[in-house]
Amino acid sequence: MHGYMNAEAFALTISTGEAHYFSRSRQTIWHKGATSGLVQRVRECLIDDDQDCVWLRVDVTGGASCHVGYRSCFYRKMPVGVEQDGPVVLEFTESEKVFDPVEVYGDAPNPTQL
Amino acid sequence: MHGYMNAEAFALTISTGEAHYFSRSRQTIWHKGATSGLVQRVRECLIDDDQDCVWLRVDVTGGASCHVGYRSCFYRKMPVGVEQDGPVVLEFTESEKVFDPVEVYGDAPNPTQL
Repeated sequence: MHGYMNAEAFALTISTGEAHYFSRSRQTIWHKGATSGLVQRVRECLIDDDQDCVWLRVDVTGGASCHVGYRSCFYRKMPVGVEQDGPVVLEFTESEKVFDPVEVYGDAPNPTQL
Repeated sequence: MHGYMNAEAFALTISTGEAHYFSRSRQTIWHKGATSGLVQRVRECLIDDDQDCVWLRVDVTGGASCHVGYRSCFYRKMPVGVEQDGPVVLEFTESEKVFDPVEVYGDAPNPTQL
């Protein structure tokens, strides 16, 4: 998954060892897994050259990070370097969902428009 | 590395099979490797659930993507989940640079402040 952190989210990630993000839509700290139980335990945290981006390797309780229900948010592949004839067709790289998002999140509002 | 694309950069990435980004500092399309020769040939392009983020697996001519000279921009590790006593000390995960940035980029202005 890809997400945003502010300084507080990053500090919480470092001190607790669990990934915290900053929800731009909700304008609040987002402890990943607080609602779903799909907590991300940080095994490795790498930071880039100009220190505005971090890369986390995590263990995920429940084995899925995507709120849609897939293991990864990146569950579809784009064709690249080939002539496109008509609309792009995305290929699914995961065959089934790990969890049912309705069961996990219920009616909680989700600002992500799919 | 982490970078930004606009619609044109993404379309160029798809059609050419080489990673193109949008330089926010220079406000222009950035064909990665145009200056350095360190072109990124896209082997796989995954897109996330709400389609505002892509993940590229690339072959890099020259074997390095970071303008500082390292293989990866993420060449340092943050300690996570441990009590910090004083300033955080970053651990280098790469022992040496792949190329000399001065040799490759010369005096070209670089907006990234390290």
